[in-house]
Amino acid sequence: MSIRIGILGYGNLGRGVECAVRQNPDMELSAVFTRRDPAQVSILTKEAAVCRVSEAEKWKGKIDVMILCGGSATDLPQQTPQYARYFNVVDSFDTHARIPEHFANVDQAAKENGTLGIISVGWDPGMFSLNRMYANAILPEGKDYTFWGKGVSQGHSDAIRRIAGVKNAKQYTIPVEHALEAVRAGENPALTTRQKHTRECFVVLEEGADPAKIEEEIKTMPNYFADYDTTVHFISEEELLKNHSGIPHGGFVIRSGKTGWEQENSHVVEYSLKLDSNPEFTASVIAAYARAAYRLSQEGQTGCRTVFDIAPAYLSPKSGEELRKHLL
Amino acid sequence: MSIRIGILGYGNLGRGVECAVRQNPDMELSAVFTRRDPAQVSILTKEAAVCRVSEAEKWKGKIDVMILCGGSATDLPQQTPQYARYFNVVDSFDTHARIPEHFANVDQAAKENGTLGIISVGWDPGMFSLNRMYANAILPEGKDYTFWGKGVSQGHSDAIRRIAGVKNAKQYTIPVEHALEAVRAGENPALTTRQKHTRECFVVLEEGADPAKIEEEIKTMPNYFADYDTTVHFISEEELLKNHSGIPHGGFVIRSGKTGWEQENSHVVEYSLKLDSNPEFTASVIAAYARAAYRLSQEGQTGCRTVFDIAPAYLSPKSGEELRKHLL
Repeated sequence: MSIRIGILGYGNLGRGVECAVRQNPDMELSAVFTRRDPAQVSILTKEAAVCRVSEAEKWKGKIDVMILCGGSATDLPQQTPQYARYFNVVDSFDTHARIPEHFANVDQAAKENGTLGIISVGWDPGMFSLNRMYANAILPEGKDYTFWGKGVSQGHSDAIRRIAGVKNAKQYTIPVEHALEAVRAGENPALTTRQKHTRECFVVLEEGADPAKIEEEIKTMPNYFADYDTTVHFISEEELLKNHSGIPHGGFVIRSGKTGWEQENSHVVEYSLKLDSNPEFTASVIAAYARAAYRLSQEGQTGCRTVFDIAPAYLSPKSGEELRKHLL
Repeated sequence: MSIRIGILGYGNLGRGVECAVRQNPDMELSAVFTRRDPAQVSILTKEAAVCRVSEAEKWKGKIDVMILCGGSATDLPQQTPQYARYFNVVDSFDTHARIPEHFANVDQAAKENGTLGIISVGWDPGMFSLNRMYANAILPEGKDYTFWGKGVSQGHSDAIRRIAGVKNAKQYTIPVEHALEAVRAGENPALTTRQKHTRECFVVLEEGADPAKIEEEIKTMPNYFADYDTTVHFISEEELLKNHSGIPHGGFVIRSGKTGWEQENSHVVEYSLKLDSNPEFTASVIAAYARAAYRLSQEGQTGCRTVFDIAPAYLSPKSGEELRKHLL
């Protein structure tokens, strides 16, 4: 029997999960839940239902894992604990500072209702976190570096779009190549924010807006741009749609460390991702962890988990014997 | 209380484990067991005992995890099941084809005696296996590549040393850069053995040996060199000791895969290691899994495990709360 998946929230991530489910023969999409009018939402999977979010609870017992595809700012803090009362759940909550609180809320709801939840699944948090953790456990004496990009930052693009006179915008985060090279060479450099990443912005202006003023406003924006070397390009809406409509991303997690009685030997562990589609890759990670959530729940486990708590074998459709024979 | 570690076999790997234990404050080295005369074996840790292998069983109850540092050809198939009768054990068994059989033997011995064993720990098998497995679970539609090097292959160096007229030798396995680049670019190339790696040999001849004959013998050696582009350099013993006495290694595990409804998006996941000391890094991975073996045993678990079966958090000295707060 297939693992029956529900998707709550049908934006880029929800559509990504739908595509990922299709690539996993042991899963099937049962229903998509949306805040929009279901009649207006067209999904790709012919066999799946499209329902109002308000109907979700009625699917209890008909969905094995509900995947919550809302935003981390306001949706997930409320939705993940709420739906953990009815379903095993997986989310991609990515507000690092609020993870402990979110974990506690989901853990309580899941334990009270005999379900299992996995939070903060994706690539950062997610695969990047895992690689930081493994490398830290293996090389206790060392230094961690995370670089992001080249890729689109949704948050920074939104920040530009909120400036008066800006019609549309896309922002790329770009790792500084020579900083990356110094880290890879095991030089353990101390790097400022400015030395690690640059920011490149493609901006479409409203009629009559002042480019000089807007460029200044972008480059001096606190938190988002002031601490970076930022380049601003003004382009037409057509050019933006033609050349900047993708959502690529990626990055690098590197730990360099020392071993030996006198720490005489150096080692560099590097994990990197180069992604054409940030939401589709995130969704693919989520699908694998949905399998884990289902299996752990079948074993009678309840409560909240993160990627740190899940033995890797739970992610794979292959048996332990097959994994040992072919992948070990 | 510290985790009390025993080391059985005091070669490069055993010394590496000794150094790794020193870097982990929650562990202590209790004893080293050797087949040599203990009076002739000098170890680095002043507080630890040096004992004959035949005395190991008497340490039952005084050692939490016994780390088996023998070879995969003849030592570990016999030793790991044997010592699993008295201790939790970790080994780095790396004969891929015999893993299923070794797993079954260790599993039986461990279950019968209430101990826990983790086999095939290191970087390949080990961290490379884990990364293959994670990437396969995340990207079901894709292709795997493993490149080794640049690094010293002990097996290939030994094969050269067995040739009559060779006094000493060191062999480096080197990944072919443009093959690596094609894989990274997501081109999914089909690569022959020859296209993936080259082999470079540094050979010291015995007095009067014929270099042309030995070079020919190396380059045509079946399995080891015949399928590769091999370079042979004849050097003096002094030069070999001066420039080629290290044991560096490393490599790359890459999976490129597709997502999207029509598989329209490409992704590349890459994990790489650059190691000054192959045995010390392997030992560092083993130390982290020794912590996991101890904890699982404390929970009452028994039997054999591999890296696929161990939730990452078990490797870290940090608590779940600390991991979620600082590394997720």
